[in-house]
Amino acid sequence: MLQLYFSPMACSLASRIALMEAGLDAHYHPVSLWTKTLVDDDSDFRGISPKGAVPVLVLENGERLTESAAVLQYIADAKPERGLAPPPGDVDRYRLQEWLSFIGTEIHKAFLFPTFWYKDDGSLAKPRARIVQTLSVPSAHLTDREFLVGHRFTVADAHLAWALLLLRPAGVDIAQWPSLAAYLERMQARPIVREAIATEMALRKTMPVSPA
Amino acid sequence: MLQLYFSPMACSLASRIALMEAGLDAHYHPVSLWTKTLVDDDSDFRGISPKGAVPVLVLENGERLTESAAVLQYIADAKPERGLAPPPGDVDRYRLQEWLSFIGTEIHKAFLFPTFWYKDDGSLAKPRARIVQTLSVPSAHLTDREFLVGHRFTVADAHLAWALLLLRPAGVDIAQWPSLAAYLERMQARPIVREAIATEMALRKTMPVSPA
Repeated sequence: MLQLYFSPMACSLASRIALMEAGLDAHYHPVSLWTKTLVDDDSDFRGISPKGAVPVLVLENGERLTESAAVLQYIADAKPERGLAPPPGDVDRYRLQEWLSFIGTEIHKAFLFPTFWYKDDGSLAKPRARIVQTLSVPSAHLTDREFLVGHRFTVADAHLAWALLLLRPAGVDIAQWPSLAAYLERMQARPIVREAIATEMALRKTMPVSPA
Repeated sequence: MLQLYFSPMACSLASRIALMEAGLDAHYHPVSLWTKTLVDDDSDFRGISPKGAVPVLVLENGERLTESAAVLQYIADAKPERGLAPPPGDVDRYRLQEWLSFIGTEIHKAFLFPTFWYKDDGSLAKPRARIVQTLSVPSAHLTDREFLVGHRFTVADAHLAWALLLLRPAGVDIAQWPSLAAYLERMQARPIVREAIATEMALRKTMPVSPA
């Protein structure tokens, strides 16, 4: 069985959503990102992954895969019949990779990450100024589209839904981008997305708050 | 013919290296990232890509693809016989995606980007402190490996070689990680990598300095 190391409401939420949308059973290991320890036995998370970051997906052969862009594509390809990623060779597969990269670099690493980890105004003034231009890109794209890529839910939507969810605690009101607000509402109306968020929000209350 | 919008020594260098290693002809359009204009006719680069970032690869059908992780995989797959990416379905393809994500998020967006764009000490104190832990990951991986993925040069190596090249102007001496210093030397010894760098360094001298 696949195993996912995750932290409640961290970016690994997208991997949980992908696993559930794929109909894949998995064992879920909660991690405290502040202390870099496993919640279950307090052991060192860097022993699992020297990066000390989630998600970590343990494959059936025991190998460990990190980075949302890779983990999400692995999960999608494990159940191709669910259509969570366009098939390799389809030009839309590169569109999926384009969105995974944009969300991971421009929204997560350039904005959410400093907001939750660095916190001081010196670190945050420029990322805060920049996020408005950043969000104009998916906002324009989603004006006349239901999903990021093609005409169905993909792992890129799992990734973006997570990022948009965290904008509010990061101090950004997405109501100023009606297409993004409507998109997040649509994503949250999916039963699996709603269930994944409810599971992690409940877990989060039992743990020290984890950042993005 | 493919077309690449690039800025000399920006991360689009990896796409140039990939195109050349693939043996693909392309038309190269220089962009000033500071002014967001095309060098050739001073027109608005945001008309080409609203993101205002390089690389932008114009495909044979006229579509424009952005984000290094997507552009590099597209180029590799256009000439599969060159082996610039493991084939889809191979577990090493996810390793390639893992490295492309790590380089794009942790080295580029979390460190090189603020270093060249934000510049002020308030923005840079924490990224500077963090880069040492970040670089320990590829350093350990490359201790007993010639390339990032498998046993041959891939587009992930093009990406990492670019990132390591920019660490020096960003104030990081990679001599403290002997495996990284040796790896960069190996990459720069490849005739195509050397030619791509020489081309962009010469162009750079004719343009306002462009950031990462």
